[in-house]
Formats: sequence, structure tokens, C-alpha cells
Amino acid sequence: MTALVVDRIGLLVTNDETVGEGRLGIVRDAAVVIEDGSVVAVVPAGAAGDERLDAAGACVIPGFVDSHTHPVFAGDRSAEFAARMAGRPYAAGGIHTTVAATRSASEPELRAGLRRRVAEAHRGGTTHLEAKSGYGLTVEHELRLLRLAGEITDDTTLMAAHVVTAERAGAAEEYVDLVCGAMVEAAAPLARWIDVFCERGAFDGDQTRRVLEAGQAAGLGLRVHAAQLGPGPGVQIAVELGAASADHCTHLTGADVDALGGSTTVATLLPASDFSTRQPYPDGRRLVDAGATVALATNCNPGSSFTTAMALCIALAVRDCGLTVEEALWAATAGGARALRRDDIGRIAPGARADLALLDAPSYLHLAYRPGMDLVLATVARGALVWARPGP
Amino acid sequence: MTALVVDRIGLLVTNDETVGEGRLGIVRDAAVVIEDGSVVAVVPAGAAGDERLDAAGACVIPGFVDSHTHPVFAGDRSAEFAARMAGRPYAAGGIHTTVAATRSASEPELRAGLRRRVAEAHRGGTTHLEAKSGYGLTVEHELRLLRLAGEITDDTTLMAAHVVTAERAGAAEEYVDLVCGAMVEAAAPLARWIDVFCERGAFDGDQTRRVLEAGQAAGLGLRVHAAQLGPGPGVQIAVELGAASADHCTHLTGADVDALGGSTTVATLLPASDFSTRQPYPDGRRLVDAGATVALATNCNPGSSFTTAMALCIALAVRDCGLTVEEALWAATAGGARALRRDDIGRIAPGARADLALLDAPSYLHLAYRPGMDLVLATVARGALVWARPGP
Repeated sequence: MTALVVDRIGLLVTNDETVGEGRLGIVRDAAVVIEDGSVVAVVPAGAAGDERLDAAGACVIPGFVDSHTHPVFAGDRSAEFAARMAGRPYAAGGIHTTVAATRSASEPELRAGLRRRVAEAHRGGTTHLEAKSGYGLTVEHELRLLRLAGEITDDTTLMAAHVVTAERAGAAEEYVDLVCGAMVEAAAPLARWIDVFCERGAFDGDQTRRVLEAGQAAGLGLRVHAAQLGPGPGVQIAVELGAASADHCTHLTGADVDALGGSTTVATLLPASDFSTRQPYPDGRRLVDAGATVALATNCNPGSSFTTAMALCIALAVRDCGLTVEEALWAATAGGARALRRDDIGRIAPGARADLALLDAPSYLHLAYRPGMDLVLATVARGALVWARPGP
Repeated sequence: MTALVVDRIGLLVTNDETVGEGRLGIVRDAAVVIEDGSVVAVVPAGAAGDERLDAAGACVIPGFVDSHTHPVFAGDRSAEFAARMAGRPYAAGGIHTTVAATRSASEPELRAGLRRRVAEAHRGGTTHLEAKSGYGLTVEHELRLLRLAGEITDDTTLMAAHVVTAERAGAAEEYVDLVCGAMVEAAAPLARWIDVFCERGAFDGDQTRRVLEAGQAAGLGLRVHAAQLGPGPGVQIAVELGAASADHCTHLTGADVDALGGSTTVATLLPASDFSTRQPYPDGRRLVDAGATVALATNCNPGSSFTTAMALCIALAVRDCGLTVEEALWAATAGGARALRRDDIGRIAPGARADLALLDAPSYLHLAYRPGMDLVLATVARGALVWARPGP
């Protein structure tokens, strides 16, 4: 059995309060011993191993858990983005553009795009992605997207309820019937989760509830896009049905904040979408202070947030959502794991998946202190080196 | 004579209106022929050369011109950053922390830090930096910083008037005398520019004028830090004295905007500092509409903007300063060259320095559409490949 040792770590974030200091579980001058894709031990620097990755005193963090992405698509909406920045607001309707491009793309094309996005996520220190369907909107096309998503993650999400398909414009209830019936049935063996875009212009509260209940009946876990563009019933429904996560949370009412604070539903903030749609930013401080568990994710998609940069999300969360750097880093790692209801990722501890990022920085503070920088020197996912920046 | 050809460029930004479309001088399906560090021709794709860099249909832009940086320093102020994000405002006084660290650093240490920052700028597509002193604040230490800056750029700037040195606290006039006398005299052979931090807590209008006039008398070009933290006389003085650039421009009066609009003084926006100090953003739209020439730069420094990411500056300028992506890209390339009063950089045209960035994107729009991403596949500076991202 070969062991990889990540050695001479100046500052190690474990997210394990039992082995290190504070909520981030900080250990100094450490090494991480990895076997067969899992962490077997966190030990003092200087450990032996067959292979060695030298951190040379730098900071190592758990790999980012990007718990909200739409990474399987074709097409480019940069012109729509530029028009929006010049004054046109973001509307859910733009999704149809990507649906058309995705349906007409071949499977190899879709796979190539997906792999490019995974590679760029690796360069940014991300080691786990949740991946949604939602650009197919027919049984056949949604299944194709879920199969592709399943090639890169076990956190696959049926999101047929992304927008009412253009073919059923004006017949939303019929489309919801299709989602709740044939789509859920066909997708259940392939998906872990079901998600709904609960928003004016997408699905209303009753429709959201129907979709989630159908998914739940088929054994899928629940996620909700809630309160992205304006206040709505999404958060209350998510909490009531015990969803793992309510995502966006940009326009929350006091009752929404209270509901999240008193629940196990994670509030997942997606500030890169608020950046790219020129929305206000969600008030992360208020959520943390209310006792909610907060996660950070990219919402990578070609319409409202075409980025896989978790470090940017951290910087935005610190500047504009009121989180401390510690809270933001936790949210981008352990918080993401919590939003996916798993404990094998988002931390560096014996038994966890060996997912970590070696920073070109002495401290995780640099993730916010150095906005826009490519701070990830190397990324290890399931014990394998998936990114290493070449030297100067 | 060997030639490098950057071939199969899908979309080439030349910033040369005489050879391409619009202000960005767009040419499609092009190749750039480079000899001896300069562009010799822009030709249709398929040109021959001894060496070939294949753009494979992607977008190529002029290398970014980062016309405002403080890259020669030692020390880390991430803890100050974190405290500021938790509620403490930014004050010029924090500069003293970096002065102390810089003075006690050895020349090899300073050089290593500077080279790291240049390497990261190259990874981000920057091919030219202006570099200021200002963390020495004695004749000897300012000269040391200027010599180091001179190793990486010919746009070196004496910025002894960064803050009144701690040793002369309460004796600002005496310190200004020193700057205007011995410092300007000693620095003039090493520096191209002189710059002053005109701000409450730094130097007032009279002091700013004295320093600039002393620099001008010694043959230095003028630059001013103006209106960063609040309104002040900096812009008016800059315009009156014919400074090349007034930098920051966050808190402008109507009279400031009019003055910039009617002058050859470039308004250089530094939105990454507004990001990292949680300031409002400058109104770039108003400046462009008033006829001002706008540049974008990073203000890379360890206190208020520890980033070399010009792409982030573009994304911020588009989201928060009201520029179009085209205006922002122009400002980050040709605008920077204008702010440094040179025409050998910031464009891709025969005779210009062969400075360019090959993007992992079909269009420059992606620089704003994909915030936080490492979009630069390869960077060529003076005809040499200074960064190439390894393949997947």
C-alpha cells in the first residue's frame, strides 16, 4: 500500500475541532498521511511516505466543496452578460438559450465542456462538485445530463424544474406533471437530489412543493433555489420539507432567516451570481447570527454565474455578505459538505476523502486578502494530484 | 533572425483602429508575427515562423498594462485586512507597518518577493508594470526600492510622499522638505515618475504641489493618488500641473470630473482597492461620458489591494464602475499605456512591444463574464513566453 504524505504544512485547516484550534481545527507544522484515497493521519511535519508533496511551510486547506453547480451545458451567453451589464436585468428566461444549445450538442461535446470545467475547478482548489441537470427539460435530455454529471460526481441533482420548457409555455402545470411523473421516475436511479427554481418566472410555491414531494417519494433528497431575484416562498417550503439546502437566499424576510436559523436546512449563498447579475448580496452575517448553517458555492452556469472560482466566492462573502474569512472558508468546505449531508468531505481527518488544496500563501486569510489571484499551488482529490502549478 | 508566430487567433484585440474593427481594433482569424521582441505584422491566420504558438481559435489581447503598483515590499498585512473586514476602516497609517518590514528586509528577500509578484502578474496576462517606491521613506531606502523596481520595469516612480515617515511624525513640512530636496535629487536618475498620496492623513494640497513641482523641476513626470478615501484637491492639482494620471478617483466632485474630461490627465481607476477596503467604487461611466481617458490598474500593495489580477479589475469595472467590457479592456491595456504616456505597449501593431495574452476563451468578454477565473493560457512579454499553463 503506497502512502502520499503532504509534508511541512505551516498552517493546516482540518475543520476538525477535536484535533486543532477553533472551528477551523487549525494545526501548525503538520503533515497529512494519505492512503488509498483517504486521509489516514494528521501528524507532525516530517512524516515518511513513498510519495511526498512538500508544502514548504505554506497553508493547506480541505478541498472546496462546490455544492451548487450546473456544469453540463453547451453554448456561450457572454453577449447576454454584456447586455445585462449595460442595463438589461437578469431573467430566468435566458435559460432557454442554453437548453437549445445543450440539446443540440453531442455527448462528446458536452463531456468535453464538463471536463474542462472540472479541470478549472481543480485549478481553483475544488475537489467535489454537486452537479445539476436542467438544460434538457425532456425525459431523454435530462437523463443524458444526469448520466454525464454522474461521470464526475455522486452528488447529481435532477433539476428538470429549472424553467418551464419552451414547448409547454403557458402550460406550466402540465410541465410540472411531467417532472413529477415520468422525469422523477426515470431520474431516480441516477440522481441523489431533486431541486426546483422557486421564483417568479420559474415555479411558484405550489409547483415547488409538488416537485419536491414527488422527488422525496422517489427517494431523492431535496434542494431549493430560493429568493434569488426577489422574496418568495422557497425558503419556508425548503425548511418545512426538511430540504438539505436552500440556495441563493439573496432576498430573505425575517421569517425566512428565523426559519433557517432553527432548522437543519443549510443556507447556501452564491455571491458570484449576485456579482454577475448585479443583484444585492445576501446578508450572511444575519444568517450566521440567527444560528443558520451557511455554505458557499459558485452556482457555475452559463447564464448568471459562469465561474468555478470558490476563492472569489470567499472574497465576496467577506466583503459583501459580512462573513469573517474563517466563516467563509468553513462555509466553502465544511458548509458545502453539510449542504450535501455528508461527512466524508470538507475536512481533513482520518477516514475522510483525501481532498485538499495547497495554497501559495502562508494563511487561508489570503483567499480573501488576495482577490482574483490563482492561489492554489496544488490540488489533491481522492489522494491523487489533479493540479500542480508549474514553477517559475 | 528568428520569428515567433502566434497563429490561429480567432479574435485578436489590437487596440489599433486603423487595422481592425472599433476602438479595440478587432481582427478575426489572424496571426501575429514577432521578431526581436517586437510585433512586425498582423496577418491572416496560417503564417509561417520558426516558432509557433497555436491559439486554436481563441482570443488574444494586448498584455495588460498595470500602470499603478507598489510591488517592492516585505511583510504581510492579512491580519489588518481581516480586522478591516470585521469593521475597522482603512487608514493610510497602516503603511508604516510595511515600511518597517521593508526596511529590515534584505535586498535578496525584497527581490524574491518582487519576482514572485511579477510572475503572478505574468500568469494573469500582465506584461508591463509601473512600480513605485514608498516603503523606504529615507533617501537610502527609497533608492534601494527604486533600484529594485528598475530591475523589472522602466516605469519606476519615486513615491517617498506616500506617508510622513514615523520618525518625523508631527513634522510633515520637514519631511516634505526632505522629499523635495535630497530625495528627488538622488532619485531623479533612477525614476521616471514622481507620485504623491494626496489625502487626509497623508499629504495636503500644498504639500502635494510642492512635491510635484520639485519632481517636475528634476525632470520627472507627474502622477497623483487623488480622492481615494474622500474628496480632496488632488485631481485639480494633477490636471493643473499636467500630470500623466490621477489615480483612484473614487470620491470625485463634479468639478473634478469636468477637469479630467477636459485634460490629458488620465483617470486611473483602481477598483480592487475599493474592493479590499470596502469603499464605494469610482463612477467610471461618468468619467468616460465626460470625455476623460480612463485606465484600470491593480494598485498591488500589501495594505489596500494585494492583487495583481487585472481581470478582476475589469470585472469590477464592468459590474461596479459602469464601464462596458470593451471600455474596461481598453482601459486595462491602451488606457494604462496612455497613463504612462507611451505608445510602445498596450496595443498589438507593427513596431509595438510583443506583449500579449492568449486567453482560454473565445472572446475578451469572458474576462468579465467569468470572474475570478484564471483565463490566461499563455503570456508573451517582449516576444518571450513568460507563462504557459500546462495542459490537463
